[in-house]
Amino acid sequence: MLVVMKKDATPEQIRRVVETIERLGLAAHPIPGTQRTAIGITGNRGTLEPSALESLDGVLEAIPVSRPFKQVSREWKAEDTVVDVGGVTIGGRALVVIAGPCAVESYEQCVTVARAVKEAGAALLRGGAYKPRTSPYSFQGLGEEGLRILARVREEVGLPVVTEALDPEGVGLVETYADMIQIGARNMQNFSLLKRAGKSRLPVLLKRGMSATIEELLLAAEYVVNEGNPNVVLCERGVRTFAEHTRNTLDLSAVPAVKRLSHLPILVDPSHGTGRREKVLPMALASVAAGADGLIIEVHDQPERALSDGHQAIVPETFRFLMERVRRLAPVMDRDVHAPPTLFPR
Amino acid sequence: MLVVMKKDATPEQIRRVVETIERLGLAAHPIPGTQRTAIGITGNRGTLEPSALESLDGVLEAIPVSRPFKQVSREWKAEDTVVDVGGVTIGGRALVVIAGPCAVESYEQCVTVARAVKEAGAALLRGGAYKPRTSPYSFQGLGEEGLRILARVREEVGLPVVTEALDPEGVGLVETYADMIQIGARNMQNFSLLKRAGKSRLPVLLKRGMSATIEELLLAAEYVVNEGNPNVVLCERGVRTFAEHTRNTLDLSAVPAVKRLSHLPILVDPSHGTGRREKVLPMALASVAAGADGLIIEVHDQPERALSDGHQAIVPETFRFLMERVRRLAPVMDRDVHAPPTLFPR
Amino acid sequence: MLVVMKKDATPEQIRRVVETIERLGLAAHPIPGTQRTAIGITGNRGTLEPSALESLDGVLEAIPVSRPFKQVSREWKAEDTVVDVGGVTIGGRALVVIAGPCAVESYEQCVTVARAVKEAGAALLRGGAYKPRTSPYSFQGLGEEGLRILARVREEVGLPVVTEALDPEGVGLVETYADMIQIGARNMQNFSLLKRAGKSRLPVLLKRGMSATIEELLLAAEYVVNEGNPNVVLCERGVRTFAEHTRNTLDLSAVPAVKRLSHLPILVDPSHGTGRREKVLPMALASVAAGADGLIIEVHDQPERALSDGHQAIVPETFRFLMERVRRLAPVMDRDVHAPPTLFPR
Amino acid sequence: MLVVMKKDATPEQIRRVVETIERLGLAAHPIPGTQRTAIGITGNRGTLEPSALESLDGVLEAIPVSRPFKQVSREWKAEDTVVDVGGVTIGGRALVVIAGPCAVESYEQCVTVARAVKEAGAALLRGGAYKPRTSPYSFQGLGEEGLRILARVREEVGLPVVTEALDPEGVGLVETYADMIQIGARNMQNFSLLKRAGKSRLPVLLKRGMSATIEELLLAAEYVVNEGNPNVVLCERGVRTFAEHTRNTLDLSAVPAVKRLSHLPILVDPSHGTGRREKVLPMALASVAAGADGLIIEVHDQPERALSDGHQAIVPETFRFLMERVRRLAPVMDRDVHAPPTLFPR
Repeated sequence: MLVVMKKDATPEQIRRVVETIERLGLAAHPIPGTQRTAIGITGNRGTLEPSALESLDGVLEAIPVSRPFKQVSREWKAEDTVVDVGGVTIGGRALVVIAGPCAVESYEQCVTVARAVKEAGAALLRGGAYKPRTSPYSFQGLGEEGLRILARVREEVGLPVVTEALDPEGVGLVETYADMIQIGARNMQNFSLLKRAGKSRLPVLLKRGMSATIEELLLAAEYVVNEGNPNVVLCERGVRTFAEHTRNTLDLSAVPAVKRLSHLPILVDPSHGTGRREKVLPMALASVAAGADGLIIEVHDQPERALSDGHQAIVPETFRFLMERVRRLAPVMDRDVHAPPTLFPR
Repeated sequence: MLVVMKKDATPEQIRRVVETIERLGLAAHPIPGTQRTAIGITGNRGTLEPSALESLDGVLEAIPVSRPFKQVSREWKAEDTVVDVGGVTIGGRALVVIAGPCAVESYEQCVTVARAVKEAGAALLRGGAYKPRTSPYSFQGLGEEGLRILARVREEVGLPVVTEALDPEGVGLVETYADMIQIGARNMQNFSLLKRAGKSRLPVLLKRGMSATIEELLLAAEYVVNEGNPNVVLCERGVRTFAEHTRNTLDLSAVPAVKRLSHLPILVDPSHGTGRREKVLPMALASVAAGADGLIIEVHDQPERALSDGHQAIVPETFRFLMERVRRLAPVMDRDVHAPPTLFPR
Repeated sequence: MLVVMKKDATPEQIRRVVETIERLGLAAHPIPGTQRTAIGITGNRGTLEPSALESLDGVLEAIPVSRPFKQVSREWKAEDTVVDVGGVTIGGRALVVIAGPCAVESYEQCVTVARAVKEAGAALLRGGAYKPRTSPYSFQGLGEEGLRILARVREEVGLPVVTEALDPEGVGLVETYADMIQIGARNMQNFSLLKRAGKSRLPVLLKRGMSATIEELLLAAEYVVNEGNPNVVLCERGVRTFAEHTRNTLDLSAVPAVKRLSHLPILVDPSHGTGRREKVLPMALASVAAGADGLIIEVHDQPERALSDGHQAIVPETFRFLMERVRRLAPVMDRDVHAPPTLFPR
Repeated sequence: MLVVMKKDATPEQIRRVVETIERLGLAAHPIPGTQRTAIGITGNRGTLEPSALESLDGVLEAIPVSRPFKQVSREWKAEDTVVDVGGVTIGGRALVVIAGPCAVESYEQCVTVARAVKEAGAALLRGGAYKPRTSPYSFQGLGEEGLRILARVREEVGLPVVTEALDPEGVGLVETYADMIQIGARNMQNFSLLKRAGKSRLPVLLKRGMSATIEELLLAAEYVVNEGNPNVVLCERGVRTFAEHTRNTLDLSAVPAVKRLSHLPILVDPSHGTGRREKVLPMALASVAAGADGLIIEVHDQPERALSDGHQAIVPETFRFLMERVRRLAPVMDRDVHAPPTLFPR
């Protein structure tokens, strides 16, 4: 249930609605808007009648929210959410491009790639210190050492860092060293991890699971938001189908679908989403044309030597070309491209 | 096997290579190019040694073609195929937009929509006279009466017509009344129909089956081309997955995949590809950005009264807006948009 | 809409209900049952009120049929349909096993396999004369020559023959030479073919399409039945998924699903359904345990030399072992196994 | 690499092979068999030549293991693994049936269902204390209180308990109260959880992910085994496809596929695998016929009041009927059914 207050409702009236809701054993979530305040209700046991709340002073209407997701829905909050990552804002007019290596392999590799992607126009640096690998015998990432490298590169190059946490403890480590917590596709329904990320002060990049519906993706985001962290950015990264020409099938219609249902920003990862280097450029442009708020791209200076997923990484030169095309495309979509931050770290 | 002749090979030398191939019990397909002639070989029984042909005069090299599709492959013909549909060329620099109602319902409906889409910039008219419907109790199309309406609208409005044939006999009827034969997704592996279309003088629009791989799509095109009709345009229209936010999952990575493997043009159908009116615009733009040679869009003046698939048809006004956005997007892709023909019917 | 007559309704009363329905511009399909007659209505335009018919003499009730399929539904006909194929009945207590080579390759191959499978206990012979092949360069079957071989083997060995038709004309040829028309997975929604099969006197074996839902399978059957041929046997043969350990994913839950929704018999094809020889036996047993009315199995005396799909054919010896296991399993399912006919051809 | 020792190899010879392997910077895993000892090698950097090891005394041969999974493969260990769960052995001749409620809701509910399923012949009790739910607003399980209820019911009824852990800490709690750790489908690639379970003394029930290939399932098991816990039982529970007649598509061919590739036991969960109560019985029988080592079935005394997944739970009476059919079927598969333990808890 969502209670929409009148434009001129007083703080006192709002307080009384909240109290009434809580007296019914439910939780009230006031959402101040630019025009008016709305109050979300969660935990509705049984049938709470809208009329019971509509009779209170200052209430415009009480709307039963039919979708299973609530706080992430457009019904709950009509305006787009803009998420701040170390001063870079995702979800506004400017497209944000996150780039970097799949895995942090060494300081040299990381700083080389970071400089190249910043120069080409990336606003955020990505890089994995903890890698979820299908086989226990594959390179699992450098761990905390990788995080330390990322932090050092972050200072030196001046790009906020997005990196993955694999478990609740990992969130704490990412909080120490980085600017945004990535939750990977395999962990989209790792609810312990989602709840822990929901208690973090850092924004969360939540990737769609390999066979997750949009509803399940939004409900996973709801887990994070419901713990108190409203700063969630979604990411389409391909789903698993019978198709063989790409490693995953990039489902770009997820972008307008999410935009319609939710106020959260959504990026696209054409690197994992296709798994094929030569398809990254066309699918990156297609993502922007479909309405995505940005991209996350794997860049490696020597893809053939990458310790993981080298076949989908592009070289810095290709990335520069991609950024030029994105810059040409952005105005057609009535957008521009977010520049790298100039005063980072703050 | 593909035999590549030297640039200065004489007609006599080419003739002798063809004879040699045929003496081995195989079929030779000379393919004159702008620079040189290549000769495709089909029907290779067992192991034909390249060296047997490379020793002949005028032969540059003999290349074993590994892909199961041959005549539609880039290996066979490196240059893009451009298909002429009543004077409108698909596969060149200009993007071609095909638009019209899902089904022909009446002369009035058809001529109204045709005028509207031509005015907005569509270069070809679509409309179904024979509708493949999941249920025997659904509207199955007006049949030959529908074809007659299309032919009348074609004369009056001046747009070449694309329409579907459901069986070998239907191809003959489409030949009588229209300019391009559409083969629908459900018939992508109706080999009797493919073979009949391969004997037609009309170009063919071949839609990807709901669970077809790119290789299967190209092999279906190979059936048409192998019967002697080289004018095949492919079309991505969504595949079937677990996803629920769209009726089908539009697999835009099929566009760069086909471009890489084949010389045939490829369009995208975002109407069937999403099954949701509100997703047609973003996915149309994404299709162009992914590199498609054009679009096929369902337009209906009264979608809520459409006899089939009304929920995915857009109104003429939305179509005009879509065309404006496509025109803004085309130059970013180094393309322009094909205008409606001015002297049609010829 | 389905009108259920009272047990003691007179022929005169039934006739009057039919007339009333037809006067409303609809088609009436009387279905005499052992206890009572029901009358199906198709072509309902708009809202036909049940009460309009319930007021007629002899009518027990008028039931709106919600499912899009009607004549194949359990609501329409509660009792199991039993289909007679040259004296072999599919859908009764006895499990029917159809076996034979994927493609008819020669008289010798066909008669050898036919004798072996009959001896092992198969009641029907399968074998393809027209093969739908993904590539135009693959063996396409012997055509009418293959049908003649099947007819000769049929006389000699004494097994009714099931063979595939690829197009409307093919149905006529199958009618000349064989006992049951198979419609393959790729043609499940070839509506011209379905309609032609619906006009045949021969029973139809309809295979589920590679990405068809159960509802679409039943609606395809409805096309056949609606043309006047009630003798349809369905067949689960695997659907296309991301899984890689089998060529298709055999969806055995289709068996109880069809049994619940429809009165038509359903077989399972574990050969195509797995595409792997070594999985045919376990999946054949699983099919019977899931409630299938029988099996269709590819058997080849020299699978390694088969002209198509050799990797999924089992040898006669394995087939004998399979039949023994099926015979042990049948009584657990309260069934027995249909013996080969003794007086065939009649 | 797998080193196979001669039958008469001495402990001293085995020790020397292990030392040689470790001197090369690799890990050696001696696997004593009934006939001979094999020594698995993991961590092979680069190309370890088999000949280097074959020259040592007592070595029969050194086999390069090609599969990405090793310790769980048949190549590594040819004999079936038998896993002991509180005295009940999974993977031997006897089929093991695990039954109980989806979620532990109260002591009364749990003890009622436990008594009923034991009486009907279940050998192990299942019940969830921590429930992974798609929505944060759904019932998440009773937590540790649920585990305490399970432990009390375990003592009283005398059935070993299988219950799910959602995160590394949860494993510790399950170790305190239960007999087998379940890892659910959503957590199949939660590698932190897999590694923690690999350090447990309890056996692990590992469910296949919703879009996991068999190779990925076996690699997930490899994570557990590689940490030192060889007692892993796999479980097929349905994969996600386009099909709509069941919640998931139960992929029974996974059973023979796993049996061929791995020595680990595999169960089937027809409750989650279909999501539909009325399909549990036929698919349970089909699972056994496909060669599964047992079943896991949701039973609830009042499914319509269940706090989670009530639509797939069967009532005790149906479960008794299911057990009777399984007992009739087992001998056809040359198996019998494991009785409930008589002296449990030990």
